Amino acid sequence: MDVVNNLDAVDETSFQAKSFFESAPLLKDADSISGKLTQFILQNSSLTGIEGPRRVVCVTSGGTTVPLEQRCVRYIDNFSSGHRGATSTEYFLKSGYSVIFLYRRGTCQPYCRSLPDDPLLECFKLASDSSIQVQESHAEAVKSAIGGHHDAVSQGYLLKLPFTTIFEYLQILRLIATSMKILGPSALFYLAAAVSDFYVPWESMAVHKIQSASGPLDMRLAQVPKMLSVLRKEWAPTAFCVSFKLETDTEILLEKAGAALKKYKMHAVVANELSTRKEVVILVTESEKKLVYRENNQSDVESPLIKLLVEKHSTYIRDLNA
Amino acid sequence: MDVVNNLDAVDETSFQAKSFFESAPLLKDADSISGKLTQFILQNSSLTGIEGPRRVVCVTSGGTTVPLEQRCVRYIDNFSSGHRGATSTEYFLKSGYSVIFLYRRGTCQPYCRSLPDDPLLECFKLASDSSIQVQESHAEAVKSAIGGHHDAVSQGYLLKLPFTTIFEYLQILRLIATSMKILGPSALFYLAAAVSDFYVPWESMAVHKIQSASGPLDMRLAQVPKMLSVLRKEWAPTAFCVSFKLETDTEILLEKAGAALKKYKMHAVVANELSTRKEVVILVTESEKKLVYRENNQSDVESPLIKLLVEKHSTYIRDLNA
Repeated sequence: MDVVNNLDAVDETSFQAKSFFESAPLLKDADSISGKLTQFILQNSSLTGIEGPRRVVCVTSGGTTVPLEQRCVRYIDNFSSGHRGATSTEYFLKSGYSVIFLYRRGTCQPYCRSLPDDPLLECFKLASDSSIQVQESHAEAVKSAIGGHHDAVSQGYLLKLPFTTIFEYLQILRLIATSMKILGPSALFYLAAAVSDFYVPWESMAVHKIQSASGPLDMRLAQVPKMLSVLRKEWAPTAFCVSFKLETDTEILLEKAGAALKKYKMHAVVANELSTRKEVVILVTESEKKLVYRENNQSDVESPLIKLLVEKHSTYIRDLNA
Repeated sequence: MDVVNNLDAVDETSFQAKSFFESAPLLKDADSISGKLTQFILQNSSLTGIEGPRRVVCVTSGGTTVPLEQRCVRYIDNFSSGHRGATSTEYFLKSGYSVIFLYRRGTCQPYCRSLPDDPLLECFKLASDSSIQVQESHAEAVKSAIGGHHDAVSQGYLLKLPFTTIFEYLQILRLIATSMKILGPSALFYLAAAVSDFYVPWESMAVHKIQSASGPLDMRLAQVPKMLSVLRKEWAPTAFCVSFKLETDTEILLEKAGAALKKYKMHAVVANELSTRKEVVILVTESEKKLVYRENNQSDVESPLIKLLVEKHSTYIRDLNA
């Protein structure tokens, strides 16, 4: 009985996913993105890494937007600085992974965390000879940002792909997942992006700017299909998958994280609470709920978190290859 | 009869505005903002400018957000790169105005238009001696950005105040307007920000993240009170006021711009259509509807637009002083 229900649920989701993609606005530069992906994955999978072929992780970062109008003036956005994804990307690279960084335009970039909001105007000055100089106070941050970023990209270990809307995000994620299929268990998905739960289906969307002529605005938003199931079942069935659960209410956080683990068959769920997310997260797996703390003020909670995930990924690969 | 209705309408708006501010979350650093404003306005009003005291313009720029949850994870955003406001700020400074730039965090900054999306990572490189160097291709853009910006700020002609939510925007705008009151007719408001028409009143807002457990999400958004009326009538009754009308449907654009001019007693309304807004705008005043075109590929539509507005502002000042 339960099994039947589960099967129904899965088929239902696949169906919803299918119609979501069929009705979504066409992804621009899909071909160029596919090209970059194929090249990046071929290059990196031919390298040897920790115990076997070099591992590739897809890190998603930042929030997706949901347009409320086809000629988009208004949209619903999900808050996310992209700090978690950018920081984690640095630690994955450090651990010998190659990273496909799927990020929201304008959000935090790897190696740029310790920079001020507006680096150009805050970190640089015009010298008397009208040459551009770095402010001493920011020199180190600027150097490691430009240096670290440049190294990762030029060595071919970091591929950055930007998105804005939920339509772009899910279409690019599908491209990434299907191209990573050939990596088998050495592929990892680290889904830190804040993805909209609700959206306005494109065909039912107002073409022009919604008029504010009179009275309140009533909106009905449809649920975004649970693509995690589709990712696990269809797009990349052998990859190691880590998803995130962010709540502002600690009460329901663990319960929802556990539910996500089962429902979407994730290998791990990172549970975090909005106000403490930079200090502590809870890594939820089938076998345990592990508290992961930031070690000290100089370090990040992502450091022990990625270390732990790399170990679990290694075990996963060994078990599958055994 | 008409007059009576108008009066009713105005009182109604004042009442709605009052309750909007009473229920809005308290503005952080209100005191420090007021301090900066008082100092900036005192300094600049003591200087002489074109025909009389130096003029001060408040340029608003970028879109406001509307939180859907008090501990904000989701919000509705209004699309705006802030390009119009940033560009106009440069031309106002060129024309001898001092500028209070009320901008959305992260949007385009004055003098930074010709820079790539991510200036730090795209314009700079680490030289072999590990010193930071500007890429030749971007050297000019970077110099004029840092130079122009630094000059305007250090000379005390540019005050930048950031906002994110509709609550911050309207509370800061009120602070600015009331502090600019003493400038009389030499104050100008250039309201280019994309302000939300709808919002969720704070008290009726979900405290925690809205759950996506089951089914679609129904939302009812209230109308944001028409603050333009309040600005004209109460906050800065003698200032020269220019508002903007953006539509994606050309059909209704002029009609709505004309209506705004009358309804909010603006001195001018800049009408622009989403797809052509960088090529042409229509300046709507009581006496005329004037098409303003970008002169050539090197220039901006803001150049002739600001020139025209400065003339109209001069006439306005002369008439009031006559």
